[in-house]
Amino acid sequence: MSDPLRVAIAGLGTIGGGTFKLIGDNAKLLERRSGREIRLVAAADMESSKKKEFALGGIRWHDDAMPMAEAKDVDVVVELIGGSEGVAKTFCETAIANGKHVVTANKALIAHHGTELALAAEEAGVVIAYEAAVAGGIPIIKALREGLAANRLTRVYGILNGTCNYILTAMRESGREFHDVLAEAQELGYAEADPGFDIDGVDAAHKLAILASVAFGCEINFKAVYSEGIRHISPLDIGFAEELGYRIKLLGIASRANGEIEQRVHPCMIPSEAPIATVEGVFNAVVTDGDFVDTLMQEGRGAGAGPTASAVVADLVDIARSCRTPAFAVPIADLDKISPKPMERHHGAYYIRLMVLDQPGVIADVSASLRDHDVSLEQLIQRGRAPGGAVSVVVTTHETDEEDILKVMEEVAALDAVTEPPRMIRIETF
Amino acid sequence: MSDPLRVAIAGLGTIGGGTFKLIGDNAKLLERRSGREIRLVAAADMESSKKKEFALGGIRWHDDAMPMAEAKDVDVVVELIGGSEGVAKTFCETAIANGKHVVTANKALIAHHGTELALAAEEAGVVIAYEAAVAGGIPIIKALREGLAANRLTRVYGILNGTCNYILTAMRESGREFHDVLAEAQELGYAEADPGFDIDGVDAAHKLAILASVAFGCEINFKAVYSEGIRHISPLDIGFAEELGYRIKLLGIASRANGEIEQRVHPCMIPSEAPIATVEGVFNAVVTDGDFVDTLMQEGRGAGAGPTASAVVADLVDIARSCRTPAFAVPIADLDKISPKPMERHHGAYYIRLMVLDQPGVIADVSASLRDHDVSLEQLIQRGRAPGGAVSVVVTTHETDEEDILKVMEEVAALDAVTEPPRMIRIETF
Repeated sequence: MSDPLRVAIAGLGTIGGGTFKLIGDNAKLLERRSGREIRLVAAADMESSKKKEFALGGIRWHDDAMPMAEAKDVDVVVELIGGSEGVAKTFCETAIANGKHVVTANKALIAHHGTELALAAEEAGVVIAYEAAVAGGIPIIKALREGLAANRLTRVYGILNGTCNYILTAMRESGREFHDVLAEAQELGYAEADPGFDIDGVDAAHKLAILASVAFGCEINFKAVYSEGIRHISPLDIGFAEELGYRIKLLGIASRANGEIEQRVHPCMIPSEAPIATVEGVFNAVVTDGDFVDTLMQEGRGAGAGPTASAVVADLVDIARSCRTPAFAVPIADLDKISPKPMERHHGAYYIRLMVLDQPGVIADVSASLRDHDVSLEQLIQRGRAPGGAVSVVVTTHETDEEDILKVMEEVAALDAVTEPPRMIRIETF
Repeated sequence: MSDPLRVAIAGLGTIGGGTFKLIGDNAKLLERRSGREIRLVAAADMESSKKKEFALGGIRWHDDAMPMAEAKDVDVVVELIGGSEGVAKTFCETAIANGKHVVTANKALIAHHGTELALAAEEAGVVIAYEAAVAGGIPIIKALREGLAANRLTRVYGILNGTCNYILTAMRESGREFHDVLAEAQELGYAEADPGFDIDGVDAAHKLAILASVAFGCEINFKAVYSEGIRHISPLDIGFAEELGYRIKLLGIASRANGEIEQRVHPCMIPSEAPIATVEGVFNAVVTDGDFVDTLMQEGRGAGAGPTASAVVADLVDIARSCRTPAFAVPIADLDKISPKPMERHHGAYYIRLMVLDQPGVIADVSASLRDHDVSLEQLIQRGRAPGGAVSVVVTTHETDEEDILKVMEEVAALDAVTEPPRMIRIETF
């Protein structure tokens, strides 16, 4: 039996608490699987009340995490501080500079600084591991980097934010408005008091940028992720989706083709019989397309103390077992820089909903705009009658370029008979 | 850059062909990800016609695989010969004895001799890897052994045989009889000419025994797997299942509780809205329950040249990267011997279908038998009217012990009014 792997945890919030509990509860099991003890030697949190909350036993307490990054008796630090800059970043940099492995659940940090941190780790001969940063308990980083290592991966996509999936599921099931359901999600603890990070797609964009890098062997390019949230999704659109055979999900989709990478996070209409369409509530799912393996889907809990701790500690077990895989599947020097494909050039099908005055000639104007921009109509539904009032008109298109759709939207929005801004949702068929 | 990893393939059938193609097509990618070249140096097949079929280039040809297990210029052998005994086993043993790593897709070999082969490999300081033996392209062995290593796993189950799932899906969609659909599957190449291995549940039982060992850290106990195939599934039962809100799937289910392990392969009725119920056709899926991660489901192609080659080569990449994980998650000496739970003590819900003469008193007799054995009735459906002829009577029960159900079946089968042997299908609610 080798020496214990000595671990220090920075941040004892939800994930830190889960990790602390897991290392305690499953200590024997971890020792059998790792071939050595995984021993918690130090913990830190800015809130010194945590010191009492946790029965720390012989574990050293720090109010400030930084000394742990330099402590002689620490082999690995677990960074659960959060945030892409500031303390979290300095803490990881310091740990690496001091020859310590780093395990983190911090998606923002990896999305913004993953390449440089991994390079520093590579040069220092230590590991930086971040399974917990993407899709919680689903071991997707390991799957992409190792399990599917034989494949040229062409696409990776998924439901990467449980808060949004919970809200969209609840909206569909209850017919309620977005703001209603968001308020409920906040009460239940499924959404933050300040929910923008989740519902505007930023969190999913962080995760997508990380997945794309591992899948395609390219430098993380978070800035190139197109991202759009779910605030504008209405029960009306959810109803039309159902009628058209679709469900609305917030997806993150990264694909590689023709020497370009497309990364986008936005609500999608997907066929209701697609496996990923049946992933509901707070669950996450990631689908991968590879040239030999074909399609693989993984579904599980994307957040929460237990699932995220499962991912954190799996990284610790890998380190304890001396399994070293390059952080982004290949050494940093071998990562490609691949041009991002701008969203205007996205090619796909679209759903557009207009509110129009119920009067003759409107459909003719809309159809003319579509024709003028070479957009081929798939279906047109006018719903209801309201002489003198506004009715819904829904258009779905065949595959076309996004820039043409944007022009159509602009023209149509300017029509006198159109009473509110048109809504557009992209249609994906997998 | 390190020395190349020198690979010899024994068996150039479907999987061997796929592996050969993958190593060629994705050579550059594999080299980047492995940090070294994965180089095919020798290949063998009993059919010497294969020698011409493959453009072998500089690769050495053998009609007999055995010399490759001893060749000085080979680091890893890939065993794709098949069969639990004979050549395949000797080949692997010889390779291990000669200090070579072994990668195999041979589920029968691992299910029967996995423990002893892994012990030999451990003593020789080499790897025996078998990702391709279970669920084709789904990296489930890696997930259990590494991705979920932090968890105490309590259950692992899945659709482990694509042939059966294809047949059951086609039967449900078309309403046709088992033998019809089997014949079609054979024509399409989804079923073997001698289909017993698949449709009688043996193949799924091999895979389940392997999964149970990795998940629970116990010695493989293939003999203890209860296994029952799908020959007796009729369109009538599929129809009743649909009516009751279930789908019929052949599942392999392994669970650990109260110091015992239950391993069983049989057709199940599962709620049609369960994620695994929507896995159709030749796809496989594996679901894992762990104490921290909760539930994880992985779905993908369980067979075929590409997906299986993806798994074989992932194992090669791990070896090239020097990632060494114990074959069954813990060293062989640490594997538990856990008592198998006999099937008579299985506790669950049941569906029983009887064909009975349409005459008074039958239901009373059936109900009395259920009462006498303490089996609590959930639902009873009598379908159709055929005075003087036979009609279907379907009974579903609440959770009860299998031995009681078997007694009920025996008693009911002996009733004069019961015209053919009762059919029983277990109900699973996840």
